Amino acid sequence: MLCLGIFSQISLIFAENMISSEPIDEKVEDKVKKNHIIDSVNMLIFLFLLILTTVTIWAFKYRRIRFLHETGLAMIYGLVVGAIIRYASPGIARTHFVTTLPQYENFTRNDPPDGIWLSIRDRSNQTSRNTTFEYSYVGQLYEETEDKDLEAKATFDPEVFFQVLLPPIIFHAGYSLKRRHFFRNLGSIFLYAFLGTTVSCFVVGSLMFAFVQMMPYLPFSFNDCLFFGAIISATDPVTILAVFSDLKVDVDVYALIFGESVLNDAVAIVLAGSVEKFMMRHDGAIETYSNTGSGPGFEVTAFFKSVGNFLGIFCGAFAIGSSMGCITALLTKFTKIKEYPLLETALFFLMSYSTFLMAEAAELTGIVAVLFCGITQAHYTYNNLSVESRGRTKQLFELLNFLSENFIFSYIGVSVFTFSNHHWEVGFIMLAIVAIVIGRAMNVYPLSFLLNLGRKQKITYAYQHMMMFAGLRGAIAYALAIRNTASVARQTMLSTTVIIVLFTVIVLGGCTTPMLSWLKIRVGVEDEQEMHHFTAPSPSSPHVASHVAPLSHEARAQEKARLVRVWYNFDYKFLKPLLTNSRPLLTETLPTFCMPLARLLTTDEQANTPLDEDKDDDSELIVADSYYSISGHQSFQNADDEELILDDGSHGVAAAAVHSSEVNNSASSDARPPDRVQAPAADDAFTGDLGLGDHVMQARVRLPGPLGDSV
Amino acid sequence: MLCLGIFSQISLIFAENMISSEPIDEKVEDKVKKNHIIDSVNMLIFLFLLILTTVTIWAFKYRRIRFLHETGLAMIYGLVVGAIIRYASPGIARTHFVTTLPQYENFTRNDPPDGIWLSIRDRSNQTSRNTTFEYSYVGQLYEETEDKDLEAKATFDPEVFFQVLLPPIIFHAGYSLKRRHFFRNLGSIFLYAFLGTTVSCFVVGSLMFAFVQMMPYLPFSFNDCLFFGAIISATDPVTILAVFSDLKVDVDVYALIFGESVLNDAVAIVLAGSVEKFMMRHDGAIETYSNTGSGPGFEVTAFFKSVGNFLGIFCGAFAIGSSMGCITALLTKFTKIKEYPLLETALFFLMSYSTFLMAEAAELTGIVAVLFCGITQAHYTYNNLSVESRGRTKQLFELLNFLSENFIFSYIGVSVFTFSNHHWEVGFIMLAIVAIVIGRAMNVYPLSFLLNLGRKQKITYAYQHMMMFAGLRGAIAYALAIRNTASVARQTMLSTTVIIVLFTVIVLGGCTTPMLSWLKIRVGVEDEQEMHHFTAPSPSSPHVASHVAPLSHEARAQEKARLVRVWYNFDYKFLKPLLTNSRPLLTETLPTFCMPLARLLTTDEQANTPLDEDKDDDSELIVADSYYSISGHQSFQNADDEELILDDGSHGVAAAAVHSSEVNNSASSDARPPDRVQAPAADDAFTGDLGLGDHVMQARVRLPGPLGDSV
Repeated sequence: MLCLGIFSQISLIFAENMISSEPIDEKVEDKVKKNHIIDSVNMLIFLFLLILTTVTIWAFKYRRIRFLHETGLAMIYGLVVGAIIRYASPGIARTHFVTTLPQYENFTRNDPPDGIWLSIRDRSNQTSRNTTFEYSYVGQLYEETEDKDLEAKATFDPEVFFQVLLPPIIFHAGYSLKRRHFFRNLGSIFLYAFLGTTVSCFVVGSLMFAFVQMMPYLPFSFNDCLFFGAIISATDPVTILAVFSDLKVDVDVYALIFGESVLNDAVAIVLAGSVEKFMMRHDGAIETYSNTGSGPGFEVTAFFKSVGNFLGIFCGAFAIGSSMGCITALLTKFTKIKEYPLLETALFFLMSYSTFLMAEAAELTGIVAVLFCGITQAHYTYNNLSVESRGRTKQLFELLNFLSENFIFSYIGVSVFTFSNHHWEVGFIMLAIVAIVIGRAMNVYPLSFLLNLGRKQKITYAYQHMMMFAGLRGAIAYALAIRNTASVARQTMLSTTVIIVLFTVIVLGGCTTPMLSWLKIRVGVEDEQEMHHFTAPSPSSPHVASHVAPLSHEARAQEKARLVRVWYNFDYKFLKPLLTNSRPLLTETLPTFCMPLARLLTTDEQANTPLDEDKDDDSELIVADSYYSISGHQSFQNADDEELILDDGSHGVAAAAVHSSEVNNSASSDARPPDRVQAPAADDAFTGDLGLGDHVMQARVRLPGPLGDSV
Repeated sequence: MLCLGIFSQISLIFAENMISSEPIDEKVEDKVKKNHIIDSVNMLIFLFLLILTTVTIWAFKYRRIRFLHETGLAMIYGLVVGAIIRYASPGIARTHFVTTLPQYENFTRNDPPDGIWLSIRDRSNQTSRNTTFEYSYVGQLYEETEDKDLEAKATFDPEVFFQVLLPPIIFHAGYSLKRRHFFRNLGSIFLYAFLGTTVSCFVVGSLMFAFVQMMPYLPFSFNDCLFFGAIISATDPVTILAVFSDLKVDVDVYALIFGESVLNDAVAIVLAGSVEKFMMRHDGAIETYSNTGSGPGFEVTAFFKSVGNFLGIFCGAFAIGSSMGCITALLTKFTKIKEYPLLETALFFLMSYSTFLMAEAAELTGIVAVLFCGITQAHYTYNNLSVESRGRTKQLFELLNFLSENFIFSYIGVSVFTFSNHHWEVGFIMLAIVAIVIGRAMNVYPLSFLLNLGRKQKITYAYQHMMMFAGLRGAIAYALAIRNTASVARQTMLSTTVIIVLFTVIVLGGCTTPMLSWLKIRVGVEDEQEMHHFTAPSPSSPHVASHVAPLSHEARAQEKARLVRVWYNFDYKFLKPLLTNSRPLLTETLPTFCMPLARLLTTDEQANTPLDEDKDDDSELIVADSYYSISGHQSFQNADDEELILDDGSHGVAAAAVHSSEVNNSASSDARPPDRVQAPAADDAFTGDLGLGDHVMQARVRLPGPLGDSV
């Protein structure tokens, strides 16, 4: 609106001579123009915020200021601009025609019309024709206040978050996932993400239900509380991990926290959807339902239906996501599209975004689909891409991720003042903070205890405290909360979520560095090797791969738990040869009677690929793409990739070394240049490093399943 | 809708158990869900089309098929899918409540309400509360047909074209402009673009007005015809230039056609806007206005107002665009943001898109602003970017351009069948084709004749025929036509534009290669040097620049016409040193009394830049960024860049050689490695090459002005 002032000055010069005579349709044209300008200015406000944030982030990085992270910054700028918009800019008057549907019309309040055609008679001239205007359905209106006018000020349809802003963030998380560490800690991550998030949801839900009993004026049912528990259980990976990347925190803490928060976003989204469906059916059937519980028989059935629903949605989305990834891999393997990197990148982008829309159109969860699509694309398709497309896709999604993230955090700040459906309850907010701290504790400590029973490398208390501390809430929680602000309960949830996001991101995010040093968690772990790497950058990935110690397939397989091992072998022998150009060939791994098929599915390029074990590493070496060799300066968002280079040099070898005594396998040392295995790496394997919790994984969490079997 | 069928099958499994009991608000929730799914499926249809197009483009490139270009392909696929959607998919029933505004309400047909709040009583229960729904203004409704329902099928708000799809296309055109050739042919290009487009607009307008006299049933006023002339005068650079790039057509034909079609998009947009405003005021004042002309006195005043309006909008948009470009240049020069390429790229993107929105908010033309922003960014900001960001920004806009372009062409195809406001008039369409051919001829031949009076290197008849032939219509014409389909006249225009776009892109686009060989226009001009370049790619741009013959500043300045020379010197001495890190320093060029200021504006980096003339070339060497050195295969969209490398090796030197006899300047040969100046380059300068039309430019077109002076 500020900008509007400035521009209207400029535009007056040009528009001035057209206001003079106002003929019949000019007002209508003006209305279109006014809306267009409002849209432009709204968007401009956020672009301005993003520009400001970008420049300030640079300044902070340049001066090595770490107490406030970029996301916190975006929110604070947002708050300031939101306050200015609310209190210092003139309102935009919007007119409404209020009418009641006549009794004889066929529409009911369950089924309002999709649109209204409004005829207006020209009163000056009785003979003249009517003019008809079209109006489209927006939604249910809860309070007919003039505050609604505020809506035109810098707010967007909440669906924008789900359709436009979240998909690139989640895809990027999957695409840049450090799969090596992720899979090594798979059991723990799945336990925290699935069981932990559910525990947190129910703990927070129950506590809040107990708390609202003290606030009878708040219309919260148990289901509302559970819904709140679900949306607030989605932890945000952005803020804390940016700090982790900057500081090069121990890779396994990193993997645990990153893996958990990426997956638990997906879990929370599906959980919230299930609770909502459960609630809707439940609340709907018994209209007078209030704070008291109802017949337990019905609830139990509905509850199990919801659990089934949860699993159905999750598996369905997983299936769509991973199969779209595989189709892209096949497309890039069996065509020579890599000769045209632009086309290849376009195809990659289009396939990935289609995945999201497909899942949404099938009433599954696009976010979950896109996460697994990202992982599949990184694991298979990435190997088939040209060197240029690897750089292009990484950079593209990195940029989209950066813009979307900061847009959301700016929006959170701005909407505190401009969004009209807020309902502030100080008591509720305070108690909610207590509840989420307890919920987080009930997630981290008991599950860590269980995991430690089976893990060789225990999750130390320092790590547990760090995980506890890392429970920031962010974009997903906000997006889930703003999606529906129909009732007072929902509005209270939104306002509470906003405060919790602001508080955790700014305060906890800012304290991450002191916390790390207080807990004595190792930072700067790979500095030495990274220096080594950056002083002699190698332009193409196979070269890098051949410098670092390659692990033989067998050593690698032995490193994993049994179920993971089955999957790993299947992947290595059949999926990778089928979907990528890596060795061994399908002609070597498939049984003899499948030979014609195997030959059909093996490309010339693949057959000519030199048979070295390195080739297999490529997929996990997301790193070694061109743009690292171009720039000496690391781009701060992808420190997780860089680590991967070293990974094969240090942890891979180290882990193999640990296991080599058991399996008596000497293949891992056959090509290792001695100068690359350095002290910190070896040290890593035997000290506080979190290895794979083999036993626990097999016994308690049967979760490698969804990765391969349930497809 | 096809997809919908498939997905509804899948989703049934999960959704099945929630349809059972239908409580009160479920229908409302369902409505939201239904709209969401329709949106997803609509978007999915276009993504599917784009994927199909991308893969087919690859197949065509792979098999070297040139008779059908990608844009034609996108349209044909679009037509097929549109037909399927229209005839083979079930309709989506939409309900409408039709009401008349009561006489006592304060709204008039000039000023309909912004929204409607509709209360619905629950008829089953008289005591229960009313439910209110909100409806928002869509627009005026012209025909209350059931065909409106079709709108839900694969159509978008036309504003999407202007807000989302066109800006990246136009920005990319500006950013990847071959400035060297563009500026050398500046006079001719401006004459074609400004005078030529206006001539074409009036010729087509007048002819169509004459033609519609034969079709009295068509409600076309002279202004309508003029508007049609304006929208149909925007020629499309995409299709023909992709073929040119593939074939390496003579650079000056390329520059003329590219320059003309990029600028004439901007001219046509502003022209159409001016005609519309003129028309609105005019038609409004005399309500009974029909096919007959009215008092000429009024028309002349209004016409000059429109001309003033045209110039105001153009200059205002130019000012916003170029100043935002300069601000970005300053931001990237005086901060060290280049250490973080991600932030740098984000800043670049945000500033560029802000430019568009600012111009729109100021009621100017965002497209024009973004074009000049692109040129400024390439000329100044590009020099300050890190090597990585250069690659990133180029690739990003290349991708966005590719996706947007193909999206629009797919949409043109689909909308033939799905858009409901079509009005097909075979007679009108045939006559329109005749009119645009005449209009194009009246543009190209007379202006070429005028230009040839002053040019040393004449525009040969072959080139003129090629320009005539290159008058394809495309995205801009369509976007302008679909923006307003309120009256039958406008609907006829849209349908005619669609047919013309389809016809020109598919038929003329497909015949480009035969036409080139028929006209004996040289192709494959730089093959020899390009081979040379690609066999020994050099990773960083300064190296490439130092291999090719550098031109001294003086030689370069002498090459230009006087007004351009003044601008060039000003740019070289003051703007470039101010906005970029290039030499000479401001401390050397500014008068002595400005020393403190000059020192303040000179960065350390700039002072340490080695003083070689090459540095100046950098800006025009958009090419030599990393991704050309990475990939041996050229990406087909930017052959115009590659040429730039050679440009400095061939045409630059060649042109200097032509002029060196006049100006007796030997500086141009001081650093030229003899092995780089090859036969074709020298040949180029003396044969059919179009040099700069010095005299004409000064005498007839005073257009270098807007580039520097009018800011």
